[in-house]
Order: sequence, then C-alpha cells, then structure tokens
Amino acid sequence: MKKEPKRINLKEIENPEFLKTLSYSELNLLSADLRQYIIDVVSENGGHLSSNLGAVESTIALCRSFDFSKDKIIFDVGHQCYTYKILTGRDFENIRKKDGPSGFPKRNESIYDCYECGHSSTSISAAMGIAEARDLKKENYQVVAFIGDASFENGLVFEALDHLKKLRTKIIIVVNDNEMSIGKNSESIFSKVFRNLSNSKTYQGSKSVIKRSFGSSKFGRAILKPLAAFKHWLKHRLIAFNIFDVFNIKYIGNIDGHNIKAMEKAFKRAKAFNEPVVIHIKTVKGKGFEYTEKDVNGAYHGVGKFDKVTGDIKTDESLTSWSKEYSDRLYEIMKTNENTVAICPATSLGSSLFNIQKDFKNRFFDVGIAEEHATILAAGLSSNGVHPFVSMYSTFLQRSYDQISHDLARMNLSTTLLIDRAGLVGNDGDTHQGIYDASFLYTIPNCTIAMASSPSQINSLLTESIKKHGVFAIRYSKEKLAKEENIVDEEIKYGEWKGLLKGENTAIISYGPIVKKLVEEIKNRKLNVSVIEAIYTRPILESNLTGLNRYSKIVIYDAYSTNVGFANSLTKSLVKTGYKGEIIIKAIPNEFINHATIEEQREQLGISIDKIIDIL
Amino acid sequence: MKKEPKRINLKEIENPEFLKTLSYSELNLLSADLRQYIIDVVSENGGHLSSNLGAVESTIALCRSFDFSKDKIIFDVGHQCYTYKILTGRDFENIRKKDGPSGFPKRNESIYDCYECGHSSTSISAAMGIAEARDLKKENYQVVAFIGDASFENGLVFEALDHLKKLRTKIIIVVNDNEMSIGKNSESIFSKVFRNLSNSKTYQGSKSVIKRSFGSSKFGRAILKPLAAFKHWLKHRLIAFNIFDVFNIKYIGNIDGHNIKAMEKAFKRAKAFNEPVVIHIKTVKGKGFEYTEKDVNGAYHGVGKFDKVTGDIKTDESLTSWSKEYSDRLYEIMKTNENTVAICPATSLGSSLFNIQKDFKNRFFDVGIAEEHATILAAGLSSNGVHPFVSMYSTFLQRSYDQISHDLARMNLSTTLLIDRAGLVGNDGDTHQGIYDASFLYTIPNCTIAMASSPSQINSLLTESIKKHGVFAIRYSKEKLAKEENIVDEEIKYGEWKGLLKGENTAIISYGPIVKKLVEEIKNRKLNVSVIEAIYTRPILESNLTGLNRYSKIVIYDAYSTNVGFANSLTKSLVKTGYKGEIIIKAIPNEFINHATIEEQREQLGISIDKIIDIL
Repeated sequence: MKKEPKRINLKEIENPEFLKTLSYSELNLLSADLRQYIIDVVSENGGHLSSNLGAVESTIALCRSFDFSKDKIIFDVGHQCYTYKILTGRDFENIRKKDGPSGFPKRNESIYDCYECGHSSTSISAAMGIAEARDLKKENYQVVAFIGDASFENGLVFEALDHLKKLRTKIIIVVNDNEMSIGKNSESIFSKVFRNLSNSKTYQGSKSVIKRSFGSSKFGRAILKPLAAFKHWLKHRLIAFNIFDVFNIKYIGNIDGHNIKAMEKAFKRAKAFNEPVVIHIKTVKGKGFEYTEKDVNGAYHGVGKFDKVTGDIKTDESLTSWSKEYSDRLYEIMKTNENTVAICPATSLGSSLFNIQKDFKNRFFDVGIAEEHATILAAGLSSNGVHPFVSMYSTFLQRSYDQISHDLARMNLSTTLLIDRAGLVGNDGDTHQGIYDASFLYTIPNCTIAMASSPSQINSLLTESIKKHGVFAIRYSKEKLAKEENIVDEEIKYGEWKGLLKGENTAIISYGPIVKKLVEEIKNRKLNVSVIEAIYTRPILESNLTGLNRYSKIVIYDAYSTNVGFANSLTKSLVKTGYKGEIIIKAIPNEFINHATIEEQREQLGISIDKIIDIL
Repeated sequence: MKKEPKRINLKEIENPEFLKTLSYSELNLLSADLRQYIIDVVSENGGHLSSNLGAVESTIALCRSFDFSKDKIIFDVGHQCYTYKILTGRDFENIRKKDGPSGFPKRNESIYDCYECGHSSTSISAAMGIAEARDLKKENYQVVAFIGDASFENGLVFEALDHLKKLRTKIIIVVNDNEMSIGKNSESIFSKVFRNLSNSKTYQGSKSVIKRSFGSSKFGRAILKPLAAFKHWLKHRLIAFNIFDVFNIKYIGNIDGHNIKAMEKAFKRAKAFNEPVVIHIKTVKGKGFEYTEKDVNGAYHGVGKFDKVTGDIKTDESLTSWSKEYSDRLYEIMKTNENTVAICPATSLGSSLFNIQKDFKNRFFDVGIAEEHATILAAGLSSNGVHPFVSMYSTFLQRSYDQISHDLARMNLSTTLLIDRAGLVGNDGDTHQGIYDASFLYTIPNCTIAMASSPSQINSLLTESIKKHGVFAIRYSKEKLAKEENIVDEEIKYGEWKGLLKGENTAIISYGPIVKKLVEEIKNRKLNVSVIEAIYTRPILESNLTGLNRYSKIVIYDAYSTNVGFANSLTKSLVKTGYKGEIIIKAIPNEFINHATIEEQREQLGISIDKIIDIL
C-alpha cells in the first residue's frame, strides 16, 4: 500500500529546511497547496497573481538545492516571491497590509531576504555586486538571480551581462521564461531568441548548402544520409546559440520549470561551475488556476480582490479610474489630431490604453519595460513634428530622468507626460510610491506640471499640453473616483490657479482630487478659510501670488508629492514677494513610505484632511 | 599629365553639396586637410580629438550618399561630429567658444542638425522616433543613426534594438567601430561579438564533429575534402551571426571606414532596404595623427590645448585637479581599508583613477558607459558589507536617478558617490552641465550632500562617508586649483557648518572652492559681513540655523547648483525657524546653460563674486 503523502501546514512554516525531507509526491501536494493558498490570499488582499502561480515549483526546487540562510537569492522585480515568502515563514495572510509583510522582498522581514526590489531588471547587477563582495571577503556561498523573461526588455540587464562577460563572477542566473510581459503587448526579445534560432538564416543556409554540395550526384546523395546526424547536431547547436553566447555566459536549458527534479539536477550542475551560468526554465503563466492560465491581457498580473470560484475581479461599478478617464479623452484627441501618438512601457493594461492600442495601431507604441527608450523615442517623434503622449507610472518615470532632461526638456520638445499612479499608491508600498516625480521634474528646466481635481479638467489639460509648452507633465492618482455623467469641460488657462472658497486670514493652497473633499469639509464646518486650487504646480505664475499678502497664514497642502518640489518652490516664491505671514507646509515628507492603504498612509504622515482642519 | 586635385578652402564651405562633384583623389586631399584643420583648432580650443579624426572619411561618404538637408542624421554622443560641422558650414574655428558653435550637434545652429546629443547611446531610439514621424506624415527620406561601438555598452541601445526588432521602422544604423571606449578600460561587447564568433563553440564543435563523423574511414576522409568548402562557408556564416542577428536586424559589414568608395557602395545598398539595416564600419582611432593613433589610455579623447608638433598636452604644473586630489586620498583609504571598492562608468582617465585601477585590480570596476548598472553593482556590494565609492561625472549621474533612489537610498545602503565635474563645466556646454545633481539628489530620501572648499577637507569627507550614513554624495568641480604642499587635514563633524568671517546684519551662506575667493574679496574690501561655509548642504541641521535670526539679510550663494535644491530647502528651513529678515538667493538658475568659459557663464548668470559683493 502506498504511503499517504505528508501534508504541510503552510501557516506553521518557519524556514525551508523541511523541504529537504519531503518526497517528490509530497512536494507535488505541497505545490498544489501553495498555489491554493496564494489564490486564497491574493483574492482577498490583492497582489501579483499570475507570475507567482508560475513560480511555485521553481521556488521549491531552489530552496531544496540551496540554503538561502547562507546562499543568496535576488529576485527581479519581485512579482515571483510569494512562494518564497511562505516557505521562509512570513505572515503571508497579511501580505500587503499595514504592518504585514510587503508584497516585495524586504531585508527587515527575514534573513532570507538579502536584497530588495520592485523595479525591473536589477537582479543580475545586484547579484554581481553581492558575489563580488563574497569573493573579496573570501566567503563561500552561491548567489542566485531569479529573473523573468520580461525583465530582459530593460537595458539594465544587458549592461550587467556586458560587464559579467568581462568580470566572470560566479553567479547563477535563473531565467523564468513564462513568455509574459506585464501587458503581453511587447514581444520579449528573450523568448524570441530562443524560439527563432532554429529558423536562423545560418541554419537554413547550411541545409541548402549541404543540398547544393551533395544532392546533385548519386555519390553526393549517398553522403547525404550520414550527414543527417551532423545536420541534427548542427540544428541543436544553433538553437543553443543565443543571447547568452553573445555575452559568453554558460547556458543550461531549457528546463521544465514545473519539474522539481529536473530543476534540481540543473541547479546541481550550475553550482559546480566556477564561472557565471544561466539556467533557462520554461513555466506556464498563471499555472494551476484556470482564469490566470487563460488570461492573455495580464488582467491577473497585478490584481485587486476577486472571486476565486468565478474568477470575477471585484469592481465597484459606481467608480472609475483616472487612467480610464484620461485614456477616454486622449482617444478623442487622437481621433481628431492625426499628428499625435501614444507611448507606454508595458503598461497599456494598467493605464487603460487598450482602446487606443486597438484603434490607432500605427500611432501606439508599447516599447516593453524600457522607460529610457520610450522617452527618447518620444523625443525623436517630437523633434520631427509629431506630438507624443508618454504614459508612465510615476514610480517608473524616474528611470528616464536623464532622458527627460537631456533630450526632451533641453531641446524643449513638445511632449505630454501622462503620469499615472502619482501620489501615494497604497499596498504596493515603498518601491512603487508616486510621490517623487513632481519633485524631480521640478529640478529639470522647461517642465510644466499639472494635476486635475476633477474629470472636467482633463480635456483642458490635454489640449493645452500639445500647445508647444515643452515637457508638459499631467499627474493622476491611483485612487478611484465616482463615475459622473454629462461632464462639462472646465476651461483652464495655462498656469492659472482658481479660488474655490473665499475666507479671511488663512488661505490653503492645494491641488488634485483631495481639494474637492477639503472644500466640502471646510464648508461643512463653516470655516472662514480661502481655498486656492493650484491646478498648475509649475510654473508658479506671479499673477497667482498677487493678493496673498493679505493672509496672515498660508497653508501649502500637497497630498500628492514630497515637500521638496512644489511646497519648497512656492515657499521660496512667497518669500520673494515679501510675504511675512506664517507659512505652514503640509506635504508628504521626503521619505520612503511603506505599504498600507492610502488612507492609512495619509493618516500616518499627518496629511489627512482632518489633520489639515486641525491646524486652521 | 595627371590633373592636380582641386583643393577646397574649408573656411568657405557653406554646405556639403560640393562633395558630390569631387573625384576620389580630391576627396583624399580633402580628408587630409580636414584632419589637419581639426588638429589645428582642437589644439587651441580643446575638444574631442581622437574620435573625430577617425570619422573624417565616413562623414564625407555619408554626406555624398545622402542629402542631410532632407535626410536626417542623428549622431550618438556627438564626439564624431566635427567633420560634419565643417562640411555643413559652421564657424569651426570658434567651436566651444562663447557664441561660437557647440562641440555637439545643435538644432539652432543649422538645418543640418535635426537632433542633439551629448550623452551616450540615444541615437537609435531617436532615429526610430524621427523615422516613425516620417512614416506617419508619409514623408520620404532616409534616417541615419551614426553610433560608435562604445555606445553599445549602455542598455539604451538594447532597448532600442529590442523595440526595432518588432517595429521594423526603416532606419540605417552606421556603427563606427574603432574599438575605443572613453577610457579604453571596459571591453566593448560590440567589437567582441564581431571578433569572437569565428572561435565560437558552435564552429569549433562543427569542425570536430565533421572530423569524428568522416575522418575515421577511408571513405569518410574522401568526403572531408569536398566538405572543406562547406566548412569555409559555415565559418563565414557564423562570423556574420552577431548581436544584430539576435535582434533580427539586417547587417552589412564590415567595411573599411576610411575607404569612401566602399562605404558609398554599402550606403547605396542600405538605402534600398525597406527594413532597418546596420552598416558596420571599422575605423582607426585618432587616424592620421601619430599621437592620437598611439594613445592607448584616451588622453586625447577629450583634450585641452596641446602642441600639435610634439603632441604635448599643455598643463600648468602649478595647478592640480579635484579629481586628482580626491583620487590620491581615496587611494590611501583603499590601501588601509580592504572593505572598500571603487566603481566608475568608463571615466577612469577623466577622474584620475588610474593608480587605483592599477593597484587594486580586484577592487576597481570600470563597467563601461553603464551608469545604471554601476549603481546597482554598488548597491549589491554595499548590501553584502563592502563599501563602494562610485565615481561619476555629475551630468552622467542623472542616468542612475532611479537606481540611486530605488536601490541605494531606499535600502539606505552605505555608499559614497564621488560626483566629478559638479557645477558649471564651461566649454562642454548644456549637455554636460553638472549643476543639477545636488537638486535631484535633494528629492531622494536618505542622501547626504557635501562639497569641500579646500583639499584639506577631502579626507574628512571621505572618511565620514563610510560611516553608515546611507548615500553620501561628495561633489567636486571641474575647475583646476593651486597645488598645495603639506596640507593639514581639517576635521569636520557630520553636517556641521563653519563660520569663516564674522560680521553684522548680513550673512552669506555658501560652499565650495569659491568660498575662499569670496572671503578674500570681502576681507579686501573690509565689508562687515558674516560668511558661513555650508560644507554639508544636506542635511540642514537645526543647530546650523541657530543664531541666524540676528541677521537682517541672509544671502544664499550657491555657485555649484541650480536654485531648486539647497537654496530652496534652506529658504524653507529659515522660514520654518521663523526668520523674518530678507532672504536673497544667488544660485544658478534652473536652466540649460550654453558653452562658454566657466567665468563667462558665472558672469552671464549673475553669480560671479563681483555680483555678490554688489548686493551686500
């Protein structure tokens, strides 16, 4: 009689040592249980689902083959670390919640996390640094970079491979190839490389040359048969000639990324090398959950609450997103103005750009996870008379700081930056906060910065942005907003602020959706306070400052940026006009802000509306 | 009798049209004359020499094969544009001088310049954007990216190739391969790819398989002979299998980049393609001038005045550079502290790091033109207990904004950023200004920023920087300084400012080498003014602000940064302490500043010492 496989209580795991005692059938049971646990928790807490479901077996195989209390594993992006979190004893049920574990690797959570991530394509560089430190200190352990195929869209990986080619540091690079980028719209160079080489001109050419050389005579045809083995060998070799050969990195692949035993064998081989080595594993995206397996658009890549039986993603039909509102209006502009294009770095789903992508095929560019290239592509287009709308999450925009400055702003090229997820982002946490973009754009000449408080302002901003103002950044929040019918567009003059409430003594200068709630609250409490909406936070027109001297107190309330951008510049401008009253800054502190809900984050940072009311 | 070749007066050239009427012997004479002209002018004005000498014939061939008043050429970096400047009628003798032509492409100089550059590896992305605009507008002309091999060290190129693979926009990429990176220290992946493939395992393997299959029998050996042709063909094919095949880009190469006729033939072929194509030309670095041809370290890459007969680079022996002073002291620290490393992106010559490179082979990393990777390599090292000194020019540091924020600062990893060429850079102009780094570092949490006014402060800053303060940025200027003997190290407490002069009513808060001259001037004029040296411009300690309320006027004098960093933050801090006096900010305006000498730039921006004295 077959022994019943031992079942592991996932909530009691302290570290991955137990894995080494399990049989393969027990590991299979564990894999299924891990998958279900991830589905259960993510369906409640939200998070990254598909990529994590694909990485269950590979993480188990890694934790059995290595001892990561000593060996080091560096995740890339961090969308594949949930199984690892569970196997290393985190409080997974509270993942992404305030004071619970982060959705990404975190050094202060566990000795098993040696490096942190959130942005793409850093793992090979980091692994090289960690391994170089190991070698300098004459320590002895393995360093593993665990990286998905989509991360090869960003140039950082190539910079690392180029350096690794020369440095030869022993690291193990595990490429988890699920042929899935965030939005699935940009073809991955990586998978392509592996798929296409058997069709390479060289191989095809070699076949015809062989035929030409030997196929024309009887004698030749006799030779063709023994050549078959050689042809087969050649085909095999050519397939193995991939991007890693170009960088002179040893390659083992491709291995079934759901076969624990096969991976263990490969890891064992990889350990024995004394030079860098790549292990290429193939996995199925969203493995083991019908809705993620069928998901072609990436709806379950990063997902909110969903029904784990029906797969229905729970959305409140009364709400809409800023991404959607902007995208709808951009669509209309692109329809009437053929001299416009839209560009995004693998975020067409996240930023609701699907309709634009579908209907303006030649005028929509999803460049993959390549913010730097996206920005210079925009610069090239703009320099040649086509206006680009560059859609980017705030947190990723910082990847193209140099390109915004050196290319777009320096040449003063007309470009609209659509900065999605600006402000606090809630549960994604510190690696994804959108609170820095306005501050760093403030350090670049020739940039306009604006944020609407209501969908009625969107059209005006978009339309203004194509009127040759150079770089025109429009920011919008990740927070949902109520759907409205029959929106009447407001007209907003470039740079102009707007008085929303008129009071004495105290003025609040603020902007963004929160202004609506602020005004409501001040009205409710019948406070005698002026509220001024700074739709444009840059430039700060002198005309906007006229008359502010009559207030004895000015509160600068910035709920969407750190204090070193608009708040500092407005303070300087007020000082310059000779303002002698009290200036109080209530802005997001210039810190890294951990995961929690946006409301919790505002509360904690002292910038909730209640806290503002308190100081009036 | 052979006709005497016609000689062109280079100073009278208006546009490149005349080239099309010249014979090849006339073109050869022209090439020699252009070379001499470049040597003549650069020996006086300084500039980029070696790369420009290598690009003479290729530029001629390009200008004969295309009409760049209609076709578009996009230079990469711009170190190869001097011949183009001359052939398109610029006032080359005044290059890099105030109001003369820039050392880099400039749209406002000529209709022949369609895109600008200065930083590496942007040309393919820009060309793609320009060509996409062309196609959208249904215009008809060629778009050429002219790029050196070293530019392939930066990931941007791979992001562009990855996108181009999918987009298939017709552009022509001319790779000028002189096997020379700025510092010649980092091996170029690019040249490597071309050199190594004939030695590839596949080809070597195929030889041995052929031998194994056919060499053992008499019959087999008879077959070996006809197989020779196939082997030869295979070898040829494998050589052509390079990085561009991986990205599915057509390749023509390699062509002698000093043979105008051969290049013209290749350009003609390239024009006929209706998909992207690479033309690989090989050139000799510094061609035609014995000192540049022999230069292995890159001394003539970017060079100041030199003697064009002896090749002697003119240096004032009484002066030293901040790079050298920092490097010397860093050397001593690295000698005693084995837990330190140094990293630079292809700038070991420019930042005087040769001794460190030579004597600490395992602890020095020149990663090539890859600022992003350099920064994450540092993060990896620091996360594993080794302190990295990352040396980078200010202007290139902005390439790693995201990595400084997301990796170094967010994990608060102890790292020293040695920011070379901080402040105004003079003749290199707007693409290379070092005036933004302090401002953008101000927008990143957990960063310290400091700048010494004298070499006696260097040791203290370097030593402090490894005491776990997180990211510790030390800035230094491109300006030379007087050599000093017997320097006695000053002790400077973390964050502390220093009173240099004591006066009444007015205080100047300033920092950096200019403070010395300021104090001297104030003493000379016997002005009753306090001067405070803010060696640390971040953090601004409260203790430094105590007592400032007694001044009726505070001048914030920042000669090394734009006003949106330290000046704004100090203003905010003063307002916060309740300071009610006058605050005057004299800092570099947040603009792009054109080429001129540093003195001319200071004068023009109103931040020369005279201008400060004026407002006291």
